[in-house]
Amino acid sequence: MNNNGHKIFLRAKKLDIQAGHPWVVVLHQKDALRYGLRSGDELIFKWHRHRTVVMVNVTALTEAIDLVKPGFVGVFRDITNTYKIQNNNLIEFLLPGQPISVKAIQKKLLGGRLSYSEIYSIIKDIVDHRLDEVQIAFFVASAFDKASFSREEMYFLTKAMAGTGEMLHFNNRVADKHSVGGLPGNRVTPILVAILAGEGICIPKTSSRAITSAAGTADSFEVIAPVQLDIKKIKRVVKKTNGCLVWGGAVKLAPADDRILKTMYHLGIEPFSKMVVSIMAKKLAMGAKYLIIDMPVGKTAKVKNMKEARELKSLFKYIANRFGVKIYVAISKANGPIGRGIGPSLEARDILRVLQQKENRPMDLEKKSTIVAGKLLELCGKAPKGKGILIAEQSLRLRKAWRKMQEIIKAQGGNQNINSERIQQGTVQLAIKSKKNGRIIDIDNKNLVEICRLLGAPSEKKAGVYIHKVVGDKIKKGEILFTMYTVSQLHIKLAETALKEIDIFKIK
Amino acid sequence: MNNNGHKIFLRAKKLDIQAGHPWVVVLHQKDALRYGLRSGDELIFKWHRHRTVVMVNVTALTEAIDLVKPGFVGVFRDITNTYKIQNNNLIEFLLPGQPISVKAIQKKLLGGRLSYSEIYSIIKDIVDHRLDEVQIAFFVASAFDKASFSREEMYFLTKAMAGTGEMLHFNNRVADKHSVGGLPGNRVTPILVAILAGEGICIPKTSSRAITSAAGTADSFEVIAPVQLDIKKIKRVVKKTNGCLVWGGAVKLAPADDRILKTMYHLGIEPFSKMVVSIMAKKLAMGAKYLIIDMPVGKTAKVKNMKEARELKSLFKYIANRFGVKIYVAISKANGPIGRGIGPSLEARDILRVLQQKENRPMDLEKKSTIVAGKLLELCGKAPKGKGILIAEQSLRLRKAWRKMQEIIKAQGGNQNINSERIQQGTVQLAIKSKKNGRIIDIDNKNLVEICRLLGAPSEKKAGVYIHKVVGDKIKKGEILFTMYTVSQLHIKLAETALKEIDIFKIK
Repeated sequence: MNNNGHKIFLRAKKLDIQAGHPWVVVLHQKDALRYGLRSGDELIFKWHRHRTVVMVNVTALTEAIDLVKPGFVGVFRDITNTYKIQNNNLIEFLLPGQPISVKAIQKKLLGGRLSYSEIYSIIKDIVDHRLDEVQIAFFVASAFDKASFSREEMYFLTKAMAGTGEMLHFNNRVADKHSVGGLPGNRVTPILVAILAGEGICIPKTSSRAITSAAGTADSFEVIAPVQLDIKKIKRVVKKTNGCLVWGGAVKLAPADDRILKTMYHLGIEPFSKMVVSIMAKKLAMGAKYLIIDMPVGKTAKVKNMKEARELKSLFKYIANRFGVKIYVAISKANGPIGRGIGPSLEARDILRVLQQKENRPMDLEKKSTIVAGKLLELCGKAPKGKGILIAEQSLRLRKAWRKMQEIIKAQGGNQNINSERIQQGTVQLAIKSKKNGRIIDIDNKNLVEICRLLGAPSEKKAGVYIHKVVGDKIKKGEILFTMYTVSQLHIKLAETALKEIDIFKIK
Repeated sequence: MNNNGHKIFLRAKKLDIQAGHPWVVVLHQKDALRYGLRSGDELIFKWHRHRTVVMVNVTALTEAIDLVKPGFVGVFRDITNTYKIQNNNLIEFLLPGQPISVKAIQKKLLGGRLSYSEIYSIIKDIVDHRLDEVQIAFFVASAFDKASFSREEMYFLTKAMAGTGEMLHFNNRVADKHSVGGLPGNRVTPILVAILAGEGICIPKTSSRAITSAAGTADSFEVIAPVQLDIKKIKRVVKKTNGCLVWGGAVKLAPADDRILKTMYHLGIEPFSKMVVSIMAKKLAMGAKYLIIDMPVGKTAKVKNMKEARELKSLFKYIANRFGVKIYVAISKANGPIGRGIGPSLEARDILRVLQQKENRPMDLEKKSTIVAGKLLELCGKAPKGKGILIAEQSLRLRKAWRKMQEIIKAQGGNQNINSERIQQGTVQLAIKSKKNGRIIDIDNKNLVEICRLLGAPSEKKAGVYIHKVVGDKIKKGEILFTMYTVSQLHIKLAETALKEIDIFKIK
């Protein structure tokens, strides 16, 4: 089907439609198939001395309906008027070669190596909607085979994905953090941003809202301050405070990623190499120079075992190196949630309890935050190796991080005097008690999220679950395991009904 | 996203629609995404002691339109009436595991080997429209990589594709022929069928209509006899005459092939392995035991060079052997058309001229037909090795093949006394003469087909081009190169106009 430059001839059929630019011609599906053309393709249209580029539309109407039959080309009034074309005039077309992007996908499928310009053409055409879902699937398919994409090609992919969207530029060298995720709670990010920005590091952090979880970082932090800022405002906040905590959706970073992800929903799996590429592309678009990856490993996390974790780590390091980004991949084993509150307001309270150093703060969240922040401080050269955690702990203890967070809250338009204990939780509450003595051996994250969802999270900020006991704790019959918060009796009843069928805690 | 057996809960929203079986529930897109569900998926629906299977529909309507919001499930009246369900009742669902076919596609993409039952599940789900275009693309993608599909897997694929459509059974052992194609003319098939059936071989031949060419075998033979026969009639014709020449579209052989091919139009290339598999699947569904493959090799043919030809041959032989099919792959170098007429009626005349042994018959077509028919006779054990061509030539010379063809024509409902010279050609004709002296060094098949199309072929049977000179012939200025046939002056003018821009003959 390589018809590059091949001449074809079709008879004009005038269509009394004015469509403006680009000029459009209509082909019957049979001819489109024959010439390997698809809607949106461009053709060179030749009529006597005239020569212009037109866009193909394809009609699938039966020949009985006298719109455009095989052998004919429907020509809109824009063209027939300009060129004085009559019905049955023979129009010559030059068939286009296949776009570079399609050729590159073919080459990849046949086992070839792609150059940067070939990969760029694919990513650009994905962003510009010039490749359809099926074509993208053919491309993505080659990413599953570990041997298929070389590391060089993955570097090219990352570069192309970053470069085809917004690229942010801050005045200082930027630090960033990403969690590969999969655990409920785990609100390390706001604490880390406060610590880093407090030490003078530029850390403009974009976060996502929940898709499958009970709350995303953006959902939780929105309880503390507005997160829906445009780029101009983000830059102003960062200039003033060195940090920010905003929703990433307002910034179009690496937009090819969304369309690629959509094709993968058809399959329900994401190749790891593709995940690393899209994370790195977004970080590069943010201008990151120091990057820490929080990678929980466990059966309910995205990364299931240490073998996978090591492969991912190695790929992250390779790509970061190619871009001159200093990276640290923090692998941690984890199964249960991190922190005690699950749901936007409950998670916001946990964050503030740590920053405000309350007695009742979740120590697991504080510990993880200082470890990760400490490593990032070391990467940035703000602490000697192994000493970062001490600076992070001190920043919390001396309320330095909290004062920085107050600046950020204020700059983003929130109330800087917010107190963890005054964050409103749902007033309809129900405590669930243990039915037996024993020890907690597991928390089922999926069921935990399911209950939070039934209570109304994440759209209802005040809904969620507070966990009184964690894995390893002893429990007595009648002691409270967790408390449910929501805004109506109906929601509580829904969750109660569900709890007859599923368990959150496994006690032995 | 492996949610197999995971319990989820949604609140009932009664929808006043009665839809009959299968029972349908409507989820909001956000929930569908969250749980990895797609329209058409099946869920187990639990309500008190009731338990039934329902099919998922997904709504993308904004939450503002109060149809089904996230967290809710729209339940049709069929279900609410039967189970007495009210709004806000909490319904429990068991998430399905992914279908075996989707898991198998994942496995293949990750480099695994598939069993017959996995491959069967994919092909069956393609036929039943349970896999969408994107999922099929992910599967097909793995066929491009030569290392990806083992020969064993290709055997499984062939078996599954044949077995998921009609399987024909004839009383005798069946011979068949397939042309990998790409050349205009080349009407070997009807001549071969007449020779083989004349020697007592059962050869029920299905052929296609033109997609990209000026005529398919079915288009050309239709000038001689009706070709649109249903399976019952085909069986009757074959029982009576040992052969037939019918359009394959009426018989649903290996229907997965059509859907797979459609995804490949997005890419414009077909992996060779896939081509072999779909040809073999169709032949097996026809019950073929002896098979000859006509494989022209040349720059305008489907197979471009000898290396490709050898690879294809080896794969054909492997798969045929696995099914106990005796196969011969006849590789021939060819660039120009075979025979002198291009277009349905002109090709039909060439076929009859050979069968009726007219003086003016195209000798290249006769020669190729006897070679291919001879090899097939040898495969069937009707001739010693190397002697098949002699039997084929004798069959033509003694009019044995023609008498058999008369039987077939009659059985299919045509006029058995048809004479090659009385086949009607278009009465509007124009002879095109050479503008210079020289030798013909090439014929451009693409341009030749383009001119035939402009003259009205294949839908206008009487339209086409008759070639007076072939590659290698000397030509003088003013001698006729070819004659165009059609039914109106307009068509001739269109072709003439096009001939100002493109050439069919290259003379040096």
